[in-house]
Amino acid sequence: MAIPAGQDALTITVLHGEDMPPGLSERVGDARLRFADDSTLADALPGSDVLLTWNFLSDAVRPAWATGGEGVRWVHTASAGVDRVAFPELLASDTTLTNSRGVFDVPMAEYVLGAILAFAKDLPTSLRLQDAGTWRHRETEPIAGRTAVVVGSGPIGHAITSLLRAAGLRVELVGRTARDGVHAFDALDGLLPEADFLVLAAPLTDQTRGLLHRGSIARMRDTARVVNVGRGPLIVQDDLVDALAAGRIAGAALDVFETEPLPADSPLWAMGNVIVSPHMSGDIVGWRDALVDLFAENLALFRDGRELRNVVDKARGYVSTSGGHS
Amino acid sequence: MAIPAGQDALTITVLHGEDMPPGLSERVGDARLRFADDSTLADALPGSDVLLTWNFLSDAVRPAWATGGEGVRWVHTASAGVDRVAFPELLASDTTLTNSRGVFDVPMAEYVLGAILAFAKDLPTSLRLQDAGTWRHRETEPIAGRTAVVVGSGPIGHAITSLLRAAGLRVELVGRTARDGVHAFDALDGLLPEADFLVLAAPLTDQTRGLLHRGSIARMRDTARVVNVGRGPLIVQDDLVDALAAGRIAGAALDVFETEPLPADSPLWAMGNVIVSPHMSGDIVGWRDALVDLFAENLALFRDGRELRNVVDKARGYVSTSGGHS
Repeated sequence: MAIPAGQDALTITVLHGEDMPPGLSERVGDARLRFADDSTLADALPGSDVLLTWNFLSDAVRPAWATGGEGVRWVHTASAGVDRVAFPELLASDTTLTNSRGVFDVPMAEYVLGAILAFAKDLPTSLRLQDAGTWRHRETEPIAGRTAVVVGSGPIGHAITSLLRAAGLRVELVGRTARDGVHAFDALDGLLPEADFLVLAAPLTDQTRGLLHRGSIARMRDTARVVNVGRGPLIVQDDLVDALAAGRIAGAALDVFETEPLPADSPLWAMGNVIVSPHMSGDIVGWRDALVDLFAENLALFRDGRELRNVVDKARGYVSTSGGHS
Repeated sequence: MAIPAGQDALTITVLHGEDMPPGLSERVGDARLRFADDSTLADALPGSDVLLTWNFLSDAVRPAWATGGEGVRWVHTASAGVDRVAFPELLASDTTLTNSRGVFDVPMAEYVLGAILAFAKDLPTSLRLQDAGTWRHRETEPIAGRTAVVVGSGPIGHAITSLLRAAGLRVELVGRTARDGVHAFDALDGLLPEADFLVLAAPLTDQTRGLLHRGSIARMRDTARVVNVGRGPLIVQDDLVDALAAGRIAGAALDVFETEPLPADSPLWAMGNVIVSPHMSGDIVGWRDALVDLFAENLALFRDGRELRNVVDKARGYVSTSGGHS
């Protein structure tokens, strides 16, 4: 990549967790990279032009921002959700915020369909019977003609909707506001009684936080299942556990949780009608490379002073344009 | 249902296993029903006009046929496969043979897609880690753009092909002979190296028996998985076990086996890259009722002397018309 002559080298702070962005140093030209984890971010951030939150679940950005954020002109998160970086101080600043929209859409849609089929075809029971060496015929469910209510009308929710419809389900899609083919968020309560599957793929915002709670679960069928690939706090987890234990709802496939990793003492681990997976629904082989590609593309635009891809609408909490990755 | 006046009452022998056809007695008018199991079929069959093989996996029909089959004008099997009733003596007779084509197509296609997604999204590992209370992130595979080779170009194979294509896979369909959109059986060897997923949904015939064996497995990728929803003997099971154990193939989802129930000492039970299910891929809630409906419809046609639905081409071993259920 050609670096414009005479331009001061950029400083990019990379907030990482256990893993690091592959090949990043070869993708940033003459920029200086500072690698920091949760404990060192506050020291690394001052004087940085760019922050890449590779560990997109870190809660360290907000406290570090208070002392070192003022010079940061661009924050990019290696996730579709922006909940850890969309805090008031950053939202009030002139800093541009971008996300990794587009990398995860189809893989997450496939994951959701896999979870729905696992429930319909009783696959967890088959595997547990297999481990016990037990042959036990059961009757299973069709998915054709069943109803899914998908919450989240961004690219991920749309990819889920397309794939589920292709597989024969009827889908009702719920977004922030009503538009063509999308129900407004306040229509959700009325749709819940129709749902055989409730799929959560919404950003975590003030509107969506805790959207599934005792009261909304009570509107659902006792045969319904929940699939959450969005963010854990979309669900009041204790309420869901109670409902699952009492049979007021038939099952849940959860890829995200209020606390991650899911604590060892969570009752969810041992529930036979729950599928626990470790926040990986979109993470196909090569996903880290795709995330680095996206950051590098945006870095080139940033250097050229051009509009970045996947700019988050800071008033809404998500990318509101239809351009860029989808 | 009106029964034509003046017609001698029919005698229908029902070969059952542990379960019985629900509500059958209310669906047969004045016909006499004789219920028999494997041990009593030979006594029940003589003098029967019709044989309903509700237990479609029974091997008792051929020996009973030798002494009591001559007056039986129609045999209907509660399955898509006809391997247990398509023995030479019956094939050489004037007896009409019908099957239950159409009841299982879409449920089986959904089952196959569920198995493919379970492999791609590593669901068995997630469930086993969940049972161990272990949070371990892994990278998964996309299914979009992957290649499935589907063997069996009847209604079930076509339903599988349609659903997999809708979910984004590339599908090569293999049948007995080449026709529009279908490869001839002898093209299979050339297609095996392309398969990410090999799906077996063929009838069990002399041509298809043992189609997957050491030699054909050797043509496959070591990342490929096999899904068998047809009949167990399509696969030389010991060869598959060896290949799975040696990593020459990546996994198998098996709903059918050489011997059913799968014997307790089969190594398949304990293989982590195998999904064992108990011959239930098409058996959605209500399937028994659908099978009785189909038999009752055909019984009305039989009484009226009209052409039955799902008549098996006794030269080929399967229903060759495109009429009736599909």
